[in-house]
Parts: sequence; structure tokens; C-alpha cells
Amino acid sequence: MAAVLRGPWKLWGRWHTHVGPAMVSSRSMASKTQVGFVGLGNMGSPMAKNLLKHGYPVIATDVFPESCKELQELGAQILDSPAEVADKADRIITMLPSSPNVIEVYTGPNGILKKVKKGSLLIDSSTIDPAVSKEMALAAEKMGAVFMDAPVSGGVGAASSGKLTFMVGGVEEEFTAAKELLSCMGANVVYCGQVGTGQAAKICNNMLLAIGMIGTAETMNLGIRLGLDPKLLTKILNMSSGRCWSSDTYNPVPGVMEGVPSANNYQGGFGTTLMAKDLGLAQNTATNTKTPILLGSLAHQIFRMMCARGYAGKDFSSVFQFLREEEGQ
Amino acid sequence: MAAVLRGPWKLWGRWHTHVGPAMVSSRSMASKTQVGFVGLGNMGSPMAKNLLKHGYPVIATDVFPESCKELQELGAQILDSPAEVADKADRIITMLPSSPNVIEVYTGPNGILKKVKKGSLLIDSSTIDPAVSKEMALAAEKMGAVFMDAPVSGGVGAASSGKLTFMVGGVEEEFTAAKELLSCMGANVVYCGQVGTGQAAKICNNMLLAIGMIGTAETMNLGIRLGLDPKLLTKILNMSSGRCWSSDTYNPVPGVMEGVPSANNYQGGFGTTLMAKDLGLAQNTATNTKTPILLGSLAHQIFRMMCARGYAGKDFSSVFQFLREEEGQ
Amino acid sequence: MAAVLRGPWKLWGRWHTHVGPAMVSSRSMASKTQVGFVGLGNMGSPMAKNLLKHGYPVIATDVFPESCKELQELGAQILDSPAEVADKADRIITMLPSSPNVIEVYTGPNGILKKVKKGSLLIDSSTIDPAVSKEMALAAEKMGAVFMDAPVSGGVGAASSGKLTFMVGGVEEEFTAAKELLSCMGANVVYCGQVGTGQAAKICNNMLLAIGMIGTAETMNLGIRLGLDPKLLTKILNMSSGRCWSSDTYNPVPGVMEGVPSANNYQGGFGTTLMAKDLGLAQNTATNTKTPILLGSLAHQIFRMMCARGYAGKDFSSVFQFLREEEGQ
Amino acid sequence: MAAVLRGPWKLWGRWHTHVGPAMVSSRSMASKTQVGFVGLGNMGSPMAKNLLKHGYPVIATDVFPESCKELQELGAQILDSPAEVADKADRIITMLPSSPNVIEVYTGPNGILKKVKKGSLLIDSSTIDPAVSKEMALAAEKMGAVFMDAPVSGGVGAASSGKLTFMVGGVEEEFTAAKELLSCMGANVVYCGQVGTGQAAKICNNMLLAIGMIGTAETMNLGIRLGLDPKLLTKILNMSSGRCWSSDTYNPVPGVMEGVPSANNYQGGFGTTLMAKDLGLAQNTATNTKTPILLGSLAHQIFRMMCARGYAGKDFSSVFQFLREEEGQ
Repeated sequence: MAAVLRGPWKLWGRWHTHVGPAMVSSRSMASKTQVGFVGLGNMGSPMAKNLLKHGYPVIATDVFPESCKELQELGAQILDSPAEVADKADRIITMLPSSPNVIEVYTGPNGILKKVKKGSLLIDSSTIDPAVSKEMALAAEKMGAVFMDAPVSGGVGAASSGKLTFMVGGVEEEFTAAKELLSCMGANVVYCGQVGTGQAAKICNNMLLAIGMIGTAETMNLGIRLGLDPKLLTKILNMSSGRCWSSDTYNPVPGVMEGVPSANNYQGGFGTTLMAKDLGLAQNTATNTKTPILLGSLAHQIFRMMCARGYAGKDFSSVFQFLREEEGQ
Repeated sequence: MAAVLRGPWKLWGRWHTHVGPAMVSSRSMASKTQVGFVGLGNMGSPMAKNLLKHGYPVIATDVFPESCKELQELGAQILDSPAEVADKADRIITMLPSSPNVIEVYTGPNGILKKVKKGSLLIDSSTIDPAVSKEMALAAEKMGAVFMDAPVSGGVGAASSGKLTFMVGGVEEEFTAAKELLSCMGANVVYCGQVGTGQAAKICNNMLLAIGMIGTAETMNLGIRLGLDPKLLTKILNMSSGRCWSSDTYNPVPGVMEGVPSANNYQGGFGTTLMAKDLGLAQNTATNTKTPILLGSLAHQIFRMMCARGYAGKDFSSVFQFLREEEGQ
Repeated sequence: MAAVLRGPWKLWGRWHTHVGPAMVSSRSMASKTQVGFVGLGNMGSPMAKNLLKHGYPVIATDVFPESCKELQELGAQILDSPAEVADKADRIITMLPSSPNVIEVYTGPNGILKKVKKGSLLIDSSTIDPAVSKEMALAAEKMGAVFMDAPVSGGVGAASSGKLTFMVGGVEEEFTAAKELLSCMGANVVYCGQVGTGQAAKICNNMLLAIGMIGTAETMNLGIRLGLDPKLLTKILNMSSGRCWSSDTYNPVPGVMEGVPSANNYQGGFGTTLMAKDLGLAQNTATNTKTPILLGSLAHQIFRMMCARGYAGKDFSSVFQFLREEEGQ
Repeated sequence: MAAVLRGPWKLWGRWHTHVGPAMVSSRSMASKTQVGFVGLGNMGSPMAKNLLKHGYPVIATDVFPESCKELQELGAQILDSPAEVADKADRIITMLPSSPNVIEVYTGPNGILKKVKKGSLLIDSSTIDPAVSKEMALAAEKMGAVFMDAPVSGGVGAASSGKLTFMVGGVEEEFTAAKELLSCMGANVVYCGQVGTGQAAKICNNMLLAIGMIGTAETMNLGIRLGLDPKLLTKILNMSSGRCWSSDTYNPVPGVMEGVPSANNYQGGFGTTLMAKDLGLAQNTATNTKTPILLGSLAHQIFRMMCARGYAGKDFSSVFQFLREEEGQ
């Protein structure tokens, strides 16, 4: 995500800097209609580039000018605010860090809905509370536009290589139009149901992922303490009913697999902070729907504790390290 | 497991009934040496039958005479006590419900070690505390015999069809001899390391299985509350990082899969009581090795609570039902 | 709380019914200035009565006319909306079921802030998210009014007898004025700090209460299973370091104490639903401040599970019953 | 506890060192009969001194000679093994670190039961599994002796000043005799019921204590994050239903109280390791009685995690520090 967008206080309402002159679309882009893009952070920037690669003229904006430069050099038109983007493009993709940013970008004083055209298709790829997605959809509907939620799985690497998975919620008739755009940026585009279900699917997946990862870390730690070789235990789990993605694809124990964060001191990958954020969303939706999530809730607290104890920036599989005895104890 | 063995008070020390006349081995069995078998319960009985099918003369015993009849009719010789079995056979397999039974069968007044021959191979397929396995190995070693732990995964069905998986702990030089016998009863025989590691592997697998199952149940419940179709959510999880055995092979939500307990009102399968027992072993080994198991421990408590609230006899995937709102609430 | 206010959809924006003719204040009330009161539910109604008893002319309103009748007969003036109350009274107390109701009553189209007078003192005794209290305070400040949060501890009984405890957050200079009014309805009025800290204090207390109650229930259940007499165990805990309010004042085990819900089949008292609601607030504030609450979060999930399994309407100490083995198991 | 006894491998069976010449009892002790004492660690040593102070001739032993010196200088007779103590004294008190030590001291080759006199009273003040207490009682009964469990609450300070609390389990007729001795060492001697219930009471108290302490730490941390002053929050909790021993007597937040470990960088007090040990006993008894302990079990895991992360030697109230954000985060 764009670092510049992270704080809850740097919101889009403060939009006032003129970022640069509008670019003239090159001829080669003439055959496809313009696509708006709001939010050029770590994820949004490579996503927008993939739209350009597929021949879509892109009209973009971000709250911080420097985030826009690279895209501008690649031919994108940069405007000053989401409202101006909405004034020019009737298909817009947004990629923002959290719910308050989404609310601001859509319904703020310089927000998309201030100038959105009737019939516009608005696709939000941020990971946020599905209740906020529903609110945005309602607000868009009042302006005659269609809002869909389409959060992604896959990180910066998948964003760059166009291999993201999109989980899409919204009216089914618009799914084909959404898929056309999203396919430029992702390998899988899955229709999940009414608006908000894209978020729901993402949140559910990540909650189960978190549980599986902590469970794998606890299990591997216990097995090692009981005298088992970690590679052998992994092999046994993976041929048995203990098998899960965290055991067979992303094993948290250093030395068991190559090419995963545990092989690289837990650098890269999916940060503990981001997992804690997603579990916070799971917790909120569970509280709002009065759903008991005993393990999910405990997983949330464990990643919170890790964030408070120096693991915020490490890959979330570092929970294995967190549970192990420290040196010298 | 043999119902007759379940109670901690019906131990093998009370051995006194004469079960029946010894059978003369048939000629067809002459080429293979005798194998002793102690514990003819739900699991032990079909396992012993598979030894007979593979041409091994079986000398068996069980604390309750009626458990022996069927095997006797199939040609096994039935004796009065583990000690007598040990007097005649130098390879013995034991399959018992819990640690106290194993202690009694090996070290009790009529136990195997009272008459075990030097050089005997003793294989225990019970699921028990690895610390007890180590004790038994030590006691056997004093008598010049070799003890190995070889708990199984797979239920009564796999026992009947000879498709069990054996996880074997003990001195590596004896593994080939053990594997020869165990292969008659199982499809996989995995060497895990020193004595006790077979138990460790089984306990670790079942702990991760328990965590994955509750996690899947919570996740599916949350997803359904958020408006997702359960089949679709399952599909999404299984193509993503939430994937686990409980989501892709043994889904706990009725209507998602066929041929699993959730499709049959949670009948059959692996009972909540048995899962609670295995998690009790995981808890004990974790306490003894001072290993923190946050999710594993909570999973244990959840299955305990289920046992107290009417789910003892249902398959452990009924945790999904346990978490759902009751009718009429 | 007023049953009529519970649903999130019956909000104050729909205000339009004329409830009845305004009452003329009696002469005996002439010496004290009018106090507005919004929200005449189970708690608000006896609170407003206590203001009347202390000689304050009360101008009240509620979204459902029938809630106002009794107070009207006692001499209160009933108006149609919070805005109208704000137009007539410059000290207003609100007592509402949850955050959305508070937002509507203050900032909705017929809300207090539409007609609030400069210098008004607005005291909200609802239990809500402290972040919402802060928002309301900010909105009030813009209109030149002062908002304070003052949630209560104590139930309907304490509200009737004027024995509530108020935990008050807001600018310290206004505390004396607030205390004058709140003292008519409560025995303790505690200043907690800046706006939102009243809510914080209440949420913190109830989270620790929830943890102590479940802990007491687990402990008593374990002790009984281990052969201890529950009255004796209670006595031992209460003279030792296990002592807590749930063990010495509100014991959850039937037969240990008289005059508590456990002595009356868990009727009356503080409902499991309400506790689950307060723990949901604790969970939200913890998530928002990134504070790990491992036991608090698990306590939340346990009460959620109880709500889903038939305990919603019972006193929250029924967690003891929930943990006990069912008859016939 | 005696450091020398801590390891599970330094058991009493290895008894062979001659500790020193037997002391002749002084005349002033003539009026009272001899009392045996086994286990002169941190707790046992001051307890035995208090017996001496009350005029009882003490015959003591410990596995390490140096532990006996001080007591010997004070007039106690030192013998070589528990068996020899049992040969001379018919009232014996044992104070040992854990279950294996108790088993060894009573039933080992040089154990008490090898030479115990008929009618002897054996009182074990160790904190151990109540199932082991029951076994010891059974073994003692076979020899015509009476065994009682009498674990203590209160630490080294209370042991020195004779202010311990004893929780006593065993046959009621012997309680008076036991109380006579225990009163020399403690301020409270509580009869709990059949053998094992003393242990049960202690385990139950400490489980609830652990839950209350973590709950208090979480609550204080959350309150501080929400803007509350910790002293004020403590005051509010203590006048409300959140009140517990950990909030009103042993507050874990530095600066709130004086004279508690949190005021002294969590030094002294009750070590995290010891609390983890007691919670391990609670966990075992809960598993054995199939009692669900959700919070108790999670509390256990939290203290285990703390032990693994550098808090083993600090007072258990340091859980507050463990949950707080680290410097520089």
C-alpha cells in the first residue's frame, strides 16, 4: 500500500496540490476507453501499469504527487483529485489502505461521487469492512453509478506480474464488464455474490490462513520439542489430515522449505501488521454479525501481541520464531 | 477401540479367564513365524485379521473373551494373558485404548515383560503419551527386548482394508523387521525417529487437524453470515491460502461435500471424544516440554465443551453445528 | 434500554409523530431550570423520574409515544423530537441503546445539534464506543455546546433507587454542572478525564468483570469435579488471592449465595446479550488502539457462543451452567 | 522450593551421603514429641525452623547436605534418608518441589513408607497433582499410616513469619492432630475434605488468580491506551464489579501501588515459572476430569510463552509488561 496513504489523518479531503499537466493520450491507446485509477501505492502502482500495458489509457491520481511520477512517465494522465478522475472516466478502480480512505475517496468533498457520471462502474480493490463497501454501493447507486468490491489476494509480486486473484462482489450483470478490466491485472477473477461478498471472501480466507499458520507453528514447535525432525514432520503432516497451505506451501520453520520467508529471516512476504489488520476486519464483521470466532479471535490477539513485541515488519510466519524459546533462556 | 477396554479400571491385571483351547496352526501358515497380538477391539480385531490373511499364524489375547471368538474361528490361537502370548511369540503387536492399559499389558503381573524372550520385537500401535512409550522401551530393554511405538492414522475402515498409516518410533535397525509386519495392515509405514516419535507425529498431526477443523468451521460460519454461498466459499478457500484438509477433503458444512460425516448428520468418522482424548495427550506433552500451544489448547477446550454438551458421539466436524445458532433463537 | 430503540433500523430520523400536548410546568418546579431527557427506556425512564423527584422540570422525548406516557403523567413535558427538546432546554441527558442511536439523536435530521443553544450541556449516559463519544463532542463543540459521556454502572434497580454510578468524561470545568444533575440519579459520580474516558472506564470494568466471572465459573466447576464443596471452595477463594467480585458478591454456582441470579435460575441481573454487547465495544476499542486482549477477546467469544445456544436472556453468570455437563451425558 | 530438588533427575532414590552426626535433643524440647521434616528448601527450611521455635524436636533430611546445616545448628537432628526419619518420628511433614519428588520420598527405595510406623501421620505440603496425593494416601494406608495433603499459600516471607495458609485434605478425624502442627507454621489451617482436596483448593485458587491477573493487566493496558489514568482506573475498578485481588492488592501496573512487585521491576513475589507450573497442574486435573477450562487453559499458555521469552524469573504480574508495546516500536 502507498505509505503516503497509511495514516488516518492524511485523507483525500485535503486535496489541493496540482500534480502536473494532463497528458495527451497516445494514438495507440485510442481504441480503448479511459480507465480511472485512484491510489498509486505499492499495490496500486503496478496494477495501473498493467492496465497501461493492456492498452487502456489511464487517468490516475494519488494524494501524494511523487507516487504519480512513474505512471505519468509511462503515459498516464495525472489529475488532482478523485472527483476530477470521475469527471473524465466512467470506469474507475480504487486501491486504498483502509476504510476511512475509501470513505473519503468516494464521499469526501473531492470524492468520486461528487462528479461521477451516470452509469459509471466503480471498482474498489481495497481490503476493508464489507459494511463500508455496502455503504459506498448505496451512495453510488443514488448517483446512478455501480459500485463493486474486488479485493485481491497476492502481494506486490503478483500485482507486478498480473497474477492477482480478485474476489468480486456486486450486481451480477456488471461482473462481465468488471472482469474485462480486472483480467488485465489478475490471473483469477471470482464472482462472490452481492456487494460486500468480495470483502467477505478475502476476510474469511485470511482468517483461516492465520489460524492455519499459527496452528502449524505451534505443531512444528511441539514436534521438534518431542524429538521429531522438522522436515520429516512436515512430510508426515502433508500426507495426512494435518495438511494445510501453511504446512505444504509456506512452512514457517527455517530450513524446511526454500523460497519462503522462513528461509530468509522472515523478510518479505505478508507482514504481521497487515495480517493483524485483516484479522481486525474479521473481528469487526464477526462482532457485527454476532458470530463466535474463538480461534480467529485468539489468532488476532496473537498477531497484535507480535506487533507490540517487534514482529510488526516481519512476515506473519514469524509466529514460529515468536513461540520458540529465546536464545540464552 | 475395544469398548471393553475403555474404562481405566478394567485392567489386564485381572486376567484370569481361560478363553479357549489353543488352535493348531494350519499347514499353510507353516512358512511364517508366529505373531502375537494383544487387544482385539474395533481396531485391533481387523488388524489381526489382516495378519492372518497375509499368512502369519496369530496368537492373540484380549481381556474380554467374546472379543476373541471371531479371530479364533479364523484360525488364531487364543491365550489367557499377554504373558502367555510373550511366552510363545517373539513378535508382538499391541493395540490398546490408553496409557494405563499399555502399562498394564507390558509391565503388569500378567504382562508381556513377565515372560518376554530375549530379542523379541514388541510393537505398540496404541495412541498414548510418548513418555509412556519411552518408559515401556526402557523396561523392555532391561529384558533384552525391543519396543517400538507405531500409532496409526485412519479409522476402522482403513484397519479393515489394510490401508492404515503407521508412524513408527524406535531403534532404526529394527525398522525393517517392524515394517514387514506393519505392511500387512497398512498402506504407509513411516519411520519417525527414536522411540516415542511415532506418538509425537500422530499427536502433532491430530492437533493441527483439530485447529484446522475448528478454524474451517468458524470461517465457513462467518462467511455464510456475511452472505457467501458455502460451496462458493469452499471453492475460493481451496484455491487460496486458506486451504486445508478440513476445507478440501472433510468439509464440516452440510451440503458442501458428499461422503463425509457432515453429509450424514455427523455420524461415523472420528468422534469428538476421541479427538478430545488426543488433544489431551497433546496438552500433556506440551505441558511436560513447556511448549506454548495457544490455539491447540483452546481447540482442546472447545472439544471438551462439546463433549459436555451432547456432541461426544458425533464426528468432530460437528463443531460447525456447535457454533451455529440454534433453531428458534 | 427501551425495547423500541433496540433495532438499528428504528432510528430517530423517522421522527414525526406528535406525541401529546406540552404540559405546563407546575409552580413547584419554577425554582430549577428545565432539563431535557432523550430516551425513556428501561433505564432512561426511572432516571428521568428521579430528576422530577428532585424538582427539575423535565422536557422529554422518545421515538415511541407509549414510552412517554408515564413520565407525562408525572408532570414532564413531552416533545416530538430531540431537536425540539434542544430548542427549549440547555441541559440535556440522553440514554440510548447503542452507537447508531446516539449518532442519530445528536446529528440526525431531527437531532439535538440541529437546534442546540450555545453553551448547552449535553450529557450522554448511553454505553457506546468512546470514538463515537469523541465525534459527538467535536460536533457539539462546532455548535458552541459541550458534550460529556457519562455511562452508568448498575441496572434497572439502581436506576429506580437513584443509586447508579456515573463515569464521566469531558472538559473538567463542566464536571461540577454535570455532577449536580447526575447526583439526582446516582450515588457515585466519578470524573474520569477527557471526553470518551467515561466510556473507557465502563468498558474496562465490564471486560474485567466478564473475565472474572468466566474464570470463577471454570474454577468452581473444576473444584467441584475434584471433590470440593462449592460453599467451602468459595470461602477459601474469598480469603485468598483468587478473590474477586464474581466469587464474593455474585457467585455463579446455585446454592452458594442467596439473592443473586444463580439462586434464581439465572433470571434477572445482567443479561448475557448485554455483556456480549459491552465486550463487543471492548473488542472494537482494543482493535482500534491495537491493544492485545487475549482473555478479554476469548471472554467475548464465549458469551457470543452462549447467546447462540439459548443463554441470551439469562444473567451472564449462567456461564457456570453453560460449562457444566448436561443431564444425561 | 529447594533448588537442589528441582531437576527431575536428582531424586531421593540416590540417597547415600551421610549428612552428619545425629544431634541429641535438648532438654527443653523434651515435653513435645519429635516431628520429622523432609525437604529443607526455600520453603521447607523456614517452616522447620518454626516447628523448632514452637518447641518441637525436629528430625530432618534433605537430598543435599548443605541445605541441612542451618537447621542442624539450630538444634535439629539430621538423618540420611526419609526412611530413617520415618523410623524415628511418627509425625512427618514433607515439602518438595513436584510430583516425582513426592513419589520418590514416599515410595522410593529409601522412602518414608519403607520404615513408617503404624499410626504415623504423614503431611505433605508440596503442591502436586491431587491424583498423586491420592496414590500416596493409598500406599500409606496399606502400611497402617495416614497421609494428608496440606499445600500452602503464601511465599517465603509467610513461611518465615509463620503466616502461611494450609489447605488440608484427608480423613477428618486426623485434622485436629494435623492442625496442631501446621498452626506452628501458618496463620490459617483450612480443612477441605477428603485426601487431594487440599491440592484441589490450592490449584483452583491459583488458576483464578492467574486469570484475574492477566485480565487485570489487559484491562489496565486497554484503559491506559484509551486515555485513562492508571491510578484512577484502579480506583474505579475497585469500587465496581471489576474488583479482584490483582486489582486491589497486587496491581500489576508500575506506579499504582507501593510494596508490590510491580513497584520493584517485578522482582520478588511469585515467579512466572511457578505460576506456569501450578497452571500445568490445573490443566492436568482438568484434562483428567474432562472439565473445560477455556480461560484457565489460555492463561496457562500465556505464562508458558512468557517463560520462553525472558519472564521466567519475574513476578507473574509482569504479564502487564509483556503485553505493553516495546520501546521504539
